[in-house]
Amino acid sequence: MLNLQSESPARWLQQVDTNLEEVLIDHAHCEHKAAATAMSLMGSYIDNLNLCQEMTRIVDEELEHFHRVLDLLARRGIAFRRLPPGHYGRRLRALVSPHEPQRAVDRLLVAGLIEARSCERFRLLADHVCDAELAEFYRSLFESEARHHTTYVRLAKHFADESTVRQRLRELALAEAAIIAEGHPLPRMHS
Amino acid sequence: MLNLQSESPARWLQQVDTNLEEVLIDHAHCEHKAAATAMSLMGSYIDNLNLCQEMTRIVDEELEHFHRVLDLLARRGIAFRRLPPGHYGRRLRALVSPHEPQRAVDRLLVAGLIEARSCERFRLLADHVCDAELAEFYRSLFESEARHHTTYVRLAKHFADESTVRQRLRELALAEAAIIAEGHPLPRMHS
Repeated sequence: MLNLQSESPARWLQQVDTNLEEVLIDHAHCEHKAAATAMSLMGSYIDNLNLCQEMTRIVDEELEHFHRVLDLLARRGIAFRRLPPGHYGRRLRALVSPHEPQRAVDRLLVAGLIEARSCERFRLLADHVCDAELAEFYRSLFESEARHHTTYVRLAKHFADESTVRQRLRELALAEAAIIAEGHPLPRMHS
Repeated sequence: MLNLQSESPARWLQQVDTNLEEVLIDHAHCEHKAAATAMSLMGSYIDNLNLCQEMTRIVDEELEHFHRVLDLLARRGIAFRRLPPGHYGRRLRALVSPHEPQRAVDRLLVAGLIEARSCERFRLLADHVCDAELAEFYRSLFESEARHHTTYVRLAKHFADESTVRQRLRELALAEAAIIAEGHPLPRMHS
């Protein structure tokens, strides 16, 4: 359902275990970035009404998640702060075509793959972390991430035919899996 | 209350009268741009919790307004489309300092002045247009624009002291009034 071409490696869960606070702070940033991505897509394709409706829903949900993570950080006495980014977002954005309408397809599919990876990782974390509040929190998020993934893939089909989208999704998902396999030394939601 | 240094000229109402459809389409774009501005400010000053809370509220409200304008266009059979922009936003953005923390003050005050001008013009339109549905629609918007103006000016004081903000607000409002006095041949919400 999520169209990912790999499962997250055990290495990542070890990174989370030894750097949970930093991963939680990064999680808040990820929710904000997901909202900003949806807003940016709306600006680029503003004459597509269905896209605007769906992006508005995603902006609302991601900002709500952002504030839920900030509340969780505050309850735990963890100061929210800027973090140097990992390479996941930058590497994925480098795969996006500069030419329309391929650019629209790529931006939507990349956004969809990030949602898919987040969903897969929230599910892993929900089963992995011993902290019951945190496990429940992750569990409460993955349904909406899966739904956002589906929405982005569906919207990509406004800009290319079904088989073109399927093929490009597979290509981008393979590239995403390679970025994940490579990993990153900074502990992040997508390291 | 709105800190504007001029009233809109009668010329603008004449432009609206002869180009109402185009002004309505531009209004939808303005609501989206107001949401995008708030999202962008949140990204730039994400470690300021109160700013993030207020920007989230503004994003939600402006996107709701955006969809209300789109619905109104649809009910009237007016196709929403891209429009070449006027010069108002570009000219105001050119006044923003490239150096922090002055940049934060300027971005917030410019956003606040755009809200103030929108508020002043919604009030004018509510009294001017003969169309009762449209008059009521404009009336329903200006309270939130005035509130957004107040929020932006208050947030600017997170980045500079009260008297510095007051003085810069006056400078920027004088520049805004000059841009408005100059006008623009394209019929826009801020021409």
